[in-house]
Amino acid sequence: MSYNTFGREFRFTTWGESHGPALGATVDGVPPGVPLTKDYIQRFMDRRRPGTSKHTTQRREPDQVRILSGVFEGVTTGTSIQLMIENTDQRSKDYGDIATSFRPGHADITYHLKYGVRDYRGGGRSSARETAARVAAGAVAQAVLGALVPDLKITGYMVQMGAMHLDRARLDLSAVDDNPFFLPDADAVQAWSDYLDGIRKDQNSVGAAIEVCVQGCPAGLGAPVYAKLDTDLAAAMMSINAVKAVEIGEGMASAALTGVDNADEIRMGPDGPEFLSNHAGGILGGISTGQDIVVRFAIKPTSSITTPRRSINARGEEIDVITKGRHDPCVGIRAVPVAEAMAACVILDHLLMDRAQTGGVRGQIG
Amino acid sequence: MSYNTFGREFRFTTWGESHGPALGATVDGVPPGVPLTKDYIQRFMDRRRPGTSKHTTQRREPDQVRILSGVFEGVTTGTSIQLMIENTDQRSKDYGDIATSFRPGHADITYHLKYGVRDYRGGGRSSARETAARVAAGAVAQAVLGALVPDLKITGYMVQMGAMHLDRARLDLSAVDDNPFFLPDADAVQAWSDYLDGIRKDQNSVGAAIEVCVQGCPAGLGAPVYAKLDTDLAAAMMSINAVKAVEIGEGMASAALTGVDNADEIRMGPDGPEFLSNHAGGILGGISTGQDIVVRFAIKPTSSITTPRRSINARGEEIDVITKGRHDPCVGIRAVPVAEAMAACVILDHLLMDRAQTGGVRGQIG
Amino acid sequence: MSYNTFGREFRFTTWGESHGPALGATVDGVPPGVPLTKDYIQRFMDRRRPGTSKHTTQRREPDQVRILSGVFEGVTTGTSIQLMIENTDQRSKDYGDIATSFRPGHADITYHLKYGVRDYRGGGRSSARETAARVAAGAVAQAVLGALVPDLKITGYMVQMGAMHLDRARLDLSAVDDNPFFLPDADAVQAWSDYLDGIRKDQNSVGAAIEVCVQGCPAGLGAPVYAKLDTDLAAAMMSINAVKAVEIGEGMASAALTGVDNADEIRMGPDGPEFLSNHAGGILGGISTGQDIVVRFAIKPTSSITTPRRSINARGEEIDVITKGRHDPCVGIRAVPVAEAMAACVILDHLLMDRAQTGGVRGQIG
Amino acid sequence: MSYNTFGREFRFTTWGESHGPALGATVDGVPPGVPLTKDYIQRFMDRRRPGTSKHTTQRREPDQVRILSGVFEGVTTGTSIQLMIENTDQRSKDYGDIATSFRPGHADITYHLKYGVRDYRGGGRSSARETAARVAAGAVAQAVLGALVPDLKITGYMVQMGAMHLDRARLDLSAVDDNPFFLPDADAVQAWSDYLDGIRKDQNSVGAAIEVCVQGCPAGLGAPVYAKLDTDLAAAMMSINAVKAVEIGEGMASAALTGVDNADEIRMGPDGPEFLSNHAGGILGGISTGQDIVVRFAIKPTSSITTPRRSINARGEEIDVITKGRHDPCVGIRAVPVAEAMAACVILDHLLMDRAQTGGVRGQIG
Repeated sequence: MSYNTFGREFRFTTWGESHGPALGATVDGVPPGVPLTKDYIQRFMDRRRPGTSKHTTQRREPDQVRILSGVFEGVTTGTSIQLMIENTDQRSKDYGDIATSFRPGHADITYHLKYGVRDYRGGGRSSARETAARVAAGAVAQAVLGALVPDLKITGYMVQMGAMHLDRARLDLSAVDDNPFFLPDADAVQAWSDYLDGIRKDQNSVGAAIEVCVQGCPAGLGAPVYAKLDTDLAAAMMSINAVKAVEIGEGMASAALTGVDNADEIRMGPDGPEFLSNHAGGILGGISTGQDIVVRFAIKPTSSITTPRRSINARGEEIDVITKGRHDPCVGIRAVPVAEAMAACVILDHLLMDRAQTGGVRGQIG
Repeated sequence: MSYNTFGREFRFTTWGESHGPALGATVDGVPPGVPLTKDYIQRFMDRRRPGTSKHTTQRREPDQVRILSGVFEGVTTGTSIQLMIENTDQRSKDYGDIATSFRPGHADITYHLKYGVRDYRGGGRSSARETAARVAAGAVAQAVLGALVPDLKITGYMVQMGAMHLDRARLDLSAVDDNPFFLPDADAVQAWSDYLDGIRKDQNSVGAAIEVCVQGCPAGLGAPVYAKLDTDLAAAMMSINAVKAVEIGEGMASAALTGVDNADEIRMGPDGPEFLSNHAGGILGGISTGQDIVVRFAIKPTSSITTPRRSINARGEEIDVITKGRHDPCVGIRAVPVAEAMAACVILDHLLMDRAQTGGVRGQIG
Repeated sequence: MSYNTFGREFRFTTWGESHGPALGATVDGVPPGVPLTKDYIQRFMDRRRPGTSKHTTQRREPDQVRILSGVFEGVTTGTSIQLMIENTDQRSKDYGDIATSFRPGHADITYHLKYGVRDYRGGGRSSARETAARVAAGAVAQAVLGALVPDLKITGYMVQMGAMHLDRARLDLSAVDDNPFFLPDADAVQAWSDYLDGIRKDQNSVGAAIEVCVQGCPAGLGAPVYAKLDTDLAAAMMSINAVKAVEIGEGMASAALTGVDNADEIRMGPDGPEFLSNHAGGILGGISTGQDIVVRFAIKPTSSITTPRRSINARGEEIDVITKGRHDPCVGIRAVPVAEAMAACVILDHLLMDRAQTGGVRGQIG
Repeated sequence: MSYNTFGREFRFTTWGESHGPALGATVDGVPPGVPLTKDYIQRFMDRRRPGTSKHTTQRREPDQVRILSGVFEGVTTGTSIQLMIENTDQRSKDYGDIATSFRPGHADITYHLKYGVRDYRGGGRSSARETAARVAAGAVAQAVLGALVPDLKITGYMVQMGAMHLDRARLDLSAVDDNPFFLPDADAVQAWSDYLDGIRKDQNSVGAAIEVCVQGCPAGLGAPVYAKLDTDLAAAMMSINAVKAVEIGEGMASAALTGVDNADEIRMGPDGPEFLSNHAGGILGGISTGQDIVVRFAIKPTSSITTPRRSINARGEEIDVITKGRHDPCVGIRAVPVAEAMAACVILDHLLMDRAQTGGVRGQIG
């Protein structure tokens, strides 16, 4: 069994290779009657698009999305939506030397072992270029969420890049869109920029940590015990290329806490329960509490670097690998809009799942 | 949509509440012809069973499993297997006072909000008692893995409990089964025991971190891009009660690494590729490399504590909650066999998925 | 991959063998807050129960259902429901001689070929005894439908048994429950009874055709193009033991019709569209029209007969097979409540699917 | 939940509307290393293509397939395959008058009721044009089957068209590809042609029955009890536009048979078991026997006819509907390659499912 599909009610299947003619997403389960245009989707694509700053790959892809089905006269019809993005800047000759050699830390060797055959150009199917299709699907999810839960807002931002850490006291979500790092601290941008310049000049790359905050998510989403909301968010983030860890709320730090400290105490506010803290990251027992949902993940450094690393090739010869081509020195940066897209898909999926089972009816308090 | 099923090829659906008459797992997709007995499963159950040391809940459940279907004359038949565990020590009166009050940090409030109605006795469906059914299903997975991949071995162990940390230099997997903490360091057991005694005497509880190591896993398992092996392991661990984070290999520490440091370089060994390090935790591009698979997760402290915490009840009144009943001061301990079970289910699931798609054919090196 | 699960939103997984200790259904996706009792389910079980007339197997099974989870204080909680039926009258010695011989027309040989091992007692997993679990699951579906669509009514009845045909002019659904054939024509019961007596005395068995009519089904159910309502009904009926054909509306007779004759013309009635005929059986383009849904299926004669038939055994020896044991001369009779149960599950599943996608919003006419 | 996906291991999701820019299939689960070219797929497309004889719609679509992903250097890579067919001859102005009126017997009204909004041009998503995508997906399945089970052969043919019936005594599968009716009787072609000319001149249309025979299918395919091979074949055929019934082997005629007559007796042949008849249509207990698999289905007459029929429009006004545009007088004809495609997908899906669970191991006889 192969598995290029994500989601249960709101589902998308991605297809396409880094240097094939096109890539895209087939989206199913979309409610009918939701306004959706190419321009709306494009705004999300442009946030992830390569080549927009010196800190990302210099591959120039316009990433223009075409809607081939499922939308009629500007409105979703409830049938499957095909979103296609044509590849235009495939400089495949750069990749000739990796046809048979395996980059350390890259999927080259595991794809070779598993499938025997692979499209090695630009990493083929294992390339992070696949995430363009996720962003397109996520834009559809955002359009539907906008119609169903207008107050819901999803914001991703970097909290760490190698040795650079976000100062939590300075967190300002309004700054995120004004710098190439999706950094919620305008004053720190220059330092991060200098740091990454240094990494790139060293022919190196660096890891990152990204956080996604979902504001305005209704309580009651999550389907225990194997489609808990946090379970699905963890799977969504871990499925993004190069991600090695996912945290909800306190995350790994929970291991050090005591029950007294970890308890998010509750009082009654004017509109219902109010939590005095959010160690839980907005999810208890796999179900949303109505607080902000906080997900964080770590992404490893790009494995394609120009510093030579020891490896082997498909003939079993020991070689040194130097990866030419155009690569992001920190793939974490462009993962931010991807993570927002995945969060949107998970939240919408659960909203529809809940609509199916409970019809949105809720237990009363008070 | 509700979702009490885990897995794709090897699937199990759990059912049952903490204080209902019984709980269990319906297991589907099991290959035929595999020896399986009640006694074999029972050995796994006994590792998770409550009441075996002073450090776990004093509820006394024999956790005797009955095989009601799918096994004939000691061998699996390929049809669905029902595993039932009867509850015997439900002291439900302990829970009368939580029928309408919500423990801070617990699923009480979210189940109430989502479903309107809930079996509050002992946490009902949200209780970690559900994990007994996972261990039973995991034992079936272990039996099948034993038949298909005899060299594969799955070992879980604690690496942190509150302020106590495993000294990695002393890691000794052979020590794990000889102490109530599944601690891979015999000499540290007394200190951990004293520490937890202190926590309990303080009417408190504490978090933990657990690691699972899969040795002998074949290369080539994992179905990119939405059923990557690490994606499914992350979902499996995050679905366990109280888990707040999952890491693969370097995990969150990846964010601090550079590409030069993170590269797991490769040389040729007598039997094929050999990796000189394992930052990746045995998975690249979502597919196993053949190295040890290393998964780690954090589990928050038990929310049911006897120290009073501020909360509300279903009538919207502000109250103080003190949870009586019998609770683990560190739920992380008994999560160890649960995590092993989940890992076994994921590995087997992927083994069967791979068998379907590739037929187990592998790309050659050399 | 094995597959003992039916449904998407409302799902049940059945387990158990004919002569094992018990069998049952694990039901998931049930909306919370629906009244459900053992007695309610039992009424459906009793309609399918063996040994209630001379025309069905003389195996005496009380078919008492136990609800082991998912219901609290008489109301569904939204968690998985386990329904267990213990087997009490397994006279397994009757089956010793079929341990290695294959009954012509029976699943004995295909289970042997596929799995290598099988529980041969009473047909094991291939026995129609599995349908008891379907009826239990169907009762849960009926309870939920009763809460969500009170006017919906599902009625199954026999329309053919060998040479006996229902006279459509005499169809009277109110007669169905008053005779052992579920025959909607009270006056024909004696003739059918005499006919089946003759079949049994001839050491023979006979096929049947059953029709299920769903009255009061809302328009708009069905998820094109691969979960059309008729697609799912066809799969549901074909999955019942011994079924060899499924028809919707005109069914096979459609092949002989012209477009002029087949058109179900439409006029406006006081409450909306009214169809002047129902060749379509209440489904167009895979979506319900609001008319009666009419499904019909044929069930082959019981293959276990006492007239000797030529066959082989597992050693490859040519033998004559005479099946002792207690068998229904017409398995079609007891398939009636099973078909009603499957129809209820399909309709509920689609109601929840539709609730998820469209939220039950409908296009307006007029 | 919407559902535009078919299959479990070998899955395809179709997308596209009759008069949109393109349509296609996203195919997942394809084994790697299988030779696959555009030309290979095109041969299957050409059999279904409209406008090839006077008996099918005069819409001229070249139905050229593009492979956009999942194939590299002529070989499948195991990643998702995108097959796109651009629409070129959309004469949408023909359809302006059906934007708000409902053709009797057509999905117009149910799509309107369910979704509120629909692409009415040429029937939009409900058009049989969707089946072009199925044929493309089926061609991929055929390629894989050709690699895995070289002796397997799937042949569809018409057995009835209105008043015309195939004379079974004259059945000759070698004649099927030499006439526009896929008729396995060369001598009857002229009479069928004259008959259909008459239907068309009468401004009418007519139903049909099609049979698909799978030769060389291995024994052991089928996953009881809810993914029986016949269950999945029934769903596959019923999902095709306008299909109203599906039969396996004897089909509806089973209702009239006795157990003595229906038994397919078994003898030992030189290569194993040999069945003396095939009432079962090659499937027992939902698992293939190794005999020919025989599936038959009825397809209703085209609902778009130029004879006026009474209906209503979206404003609730009573109208007469006359459907202009270009329509097949017998949609059954072009359903033949579609049914072959669906059969190929089901057989391959089950081959992979079986490979996952049993590894293809078989019980021995003799």
